[in-house]
Amino acid sequence: MTHFVRSTPTLSLLTGALVLATLASSTVGQAQELPAVKPSAPLLLKSRGSFLVGGNAVAQTPAQLSYFTPDPPPSGTTVTVNQMYVDFMVPLVERGLPVVMVHGATLTGKSYDTTPDGRMGWFEYFVRKGHATYLPDQVSRGRSGFDISTYNDVRAGVKPLSALPNFWRFGDELAWTQFRFGPTFGTPFADEQFPVEAAAEFSKQAVPDLNYVLPNPNPNIAATAQLAAQLKGAVLMGHSQSGTLPLDAALADPTGVRAMVLLEPGGCRSATWTDAQIASLAKIPMLVEFGDHLDAVTGTMVNWQNQFNDCQAFIGRVKAAGGVADMLHPPELGIFGNSHMVMQDKNNLVIADLVLAWLNQHARR
Amino acid sequence: MTHFVRSTPTLSLLTGALVLATLASSTVGQAQELPAVKPSAPLLLKSRGSFLVGGNAVAQTPAQLSYFTPDPPPSGTTVTVNQMYVDFMVPLVERGLPVVMVHGATLTGKSYDTTPDGRMGWFEYFVRKGHATYLPDQVSRGRSGFDISTYNDVRAGVKPLSALPNFWRFGDELAWTQFRFGPTFGTPFADEQFPVEAAAEFSKQAVPDLNYVLPNPNPNIAATAQLAAQLKGAVLMGHSQSGTLPLDAALADPTGVRAMVLLEPGGCRSATWTDAQIASLAKIPMLVEFGDHLDAVTGTMVNWQNQFNDCQAFIGRVKAAGGVADMLHPPELGIFGNSHMVMQDKNNLVIADLVLAWLNQHARR
Repeated sequence: MTHFVRSTPTLSLLTGALVLATLASSTVGQAQELPAVKPSAPLLLKSRGSFLVGGNAVAQTPAQLSYFTPDPPPSGTTVTVNQMYVDFMVPLVERGLPVVMVHGATLTGKSYDTTPDGRMGWFEYFVRKGHATYLPDQVSRGRSGFDISTYNDVRAGVKPLSALPNFWRFGDELAWTQFRFGPTFGTPFADEQFPVEAAAEFSKQAVPDLNYVLPNPNPNIAATAQLAAQLKGAVLMGHSQSGTLPLDAALADPTGVRAMVLLEPGGCRSATWTDAQIASLAKIPMLVEFGDHLDAVTGTMVNWQNQFNDCQAFIGRVKAAGGVADMLHPPELGIFGNSHMVMQDKNNLVIADLVLAWLNQHARR
Repeated sequence: MTHFVRSTPTLSLLTGALVLATLASSTVGQAQELPAVKPSAPLLLKSRGSFLVGGNAVAQTPAQLSYFTPDPPPSGTTVTVNQMYVDFMVPLVERGLPVVMVHGATLTGKSYDTTPDGRMGWFEYFVRKGHATYLPDQVSRGRSGFDISTYNDVRAGVKPLSALPNFWRFGDELAWTQFRFGPTFGTPFADEQFPVEAAAEFSKQAVPDLNYVLPNPNPNIAATAQLAAQLKGAVLMGHSQSGTLPLDAALADPTGVRAMVLLEPGGCRSATWTDAQIASLAKIPMLVEFGDHLDAVTGTMVNWQNQFNDCQAFIGRVKAAGGVADMLHPPELGIFGNSHMVMQDKNNLVIADLVLAWLNQHARR
């Protein structure tokens, strides 16, 4: 937790949280006291486990059985696709709403767990702070599995090569600049918060991503909305590729969506929402977070300054419709150097405290 | 825990454990008392988290970037492959050795977590019994990710269609008979222990499996051996496809392998080991488990009775070399109806207790 302050060296973490709470809310004074967390203290859980949400049965092309050529056995072909794997922990004493943490492109729920350099991630930290926390792998990725029917059709010669699904996986060089570890591959920003010494460990977290060929609408929307409803009220958190997933889920089914946290979404599609959609979204408090160095890297896939500006415009529309919509931009609080992988940054628990303070104001049980 | 007794209705769980301990060991009387587990009691952890073992950097073919066609950004292509994702829990009070639980074909570590019908799995149960427990996703699967370079080469036209990697994923119909849920798809055995009413949930656990095209030697061997060494001593458990992985890992590097548990391996390759290999394996206690109805299903990919017989022959060789090698065959203890997915069966904790009792005899801290 050193080096996170550039211009206001005496700013304490608590001060940061209070500053945010003061800035973000007109209901100052209602904040509950958050439990102190000592990362090495034992973790006491009421329950934990994993399950799968959604999914539908399809028939796979028998080409899958070529695994056992030349003598494939008689076999059925029905498989389930579009399900979403979720693991979870529930603290013994719950102090806030359940939180569903959805990861970004070519990553899995691992994003929110132990950091690449071995520190506590947000998954455990939010539990220690009293939130039942749910960690999905997006549909088609990680422990959620994926649909190989089109792939098998091509392999069997039933469909053309051009039908092959588009697996995408970011490379280390792209990640470095795109996720703002530094201005050029191998060089960090002077105040960089991402643990760049563990970049090789971060590289191991990447998995192939099939989102480009998911059904429309994206099954993650219904799955997260369904999960929130099953939880009888939850905070939906999205990151990057899934940054606006909470908005889509809330519009699909607002039943369980009590608050939304958008971590560096690839834009907020500010101009695309109808006034009716904005009115619906304005009924649910939302927090948008963007880190530092937004305009310091050019030529990458996404220009984060543009996405920040788009989200500010979106926040403006929601506020104009009477909604609670706040921007958490740590540099404005004197907290510098945060990367795109904010939940893994060296000051990840500092940022978590700011999010938790906002939840404590706007998304109470 | 009803219905698990067919011919000896008064056999208690404890009796079963003692019978096994008595049968399996010449050192009766050393058993530690195992803590009683109340599944609904809070879970107290010293630590938990996740990390990745192994992995090496490779260059991906730029075809991956077609995700963003027609305007792919400048991007690097270095990715890490062959890493193994592991999540873990360490109980506050450890009473036994760490246990590494490796899953079988077209599945992930989820196999050992919450059962398809929502009961506690072996992952949590072993932790509650005092074992730090480590749950990998096999290399190339789930949260371990996989290598898409050959796939991208084919997609880019650099390699022929015939080079496409062989994804395999079992279908529901094959799983039903192959995993011995019942004699024909949809019909369970009368005393079936698998929770067949949740077969649709089990179907959601399946993911595409790339083991057929993994490098040789299989990277899971080095990764699990390395994990055991890092833990300074662990029990390696394998299931089905990974059933003999503990043997291979121990031969590759026995440093950390303190005991081996082989759950329904697809055979024990009894005739293939050299005498020198058998002598090495005989230094490490091993338990092999096979459930019920081994010869009741014909025409499937694997004939389990044959695998059982092969493992009995293997056990014979290890014993002849002075090793501790035991067969846990629940029907011989009056426990009937266990499926191939023993860690998910309705009596999964009964079988776990038998394994734990054996570990308590042969793999103490």
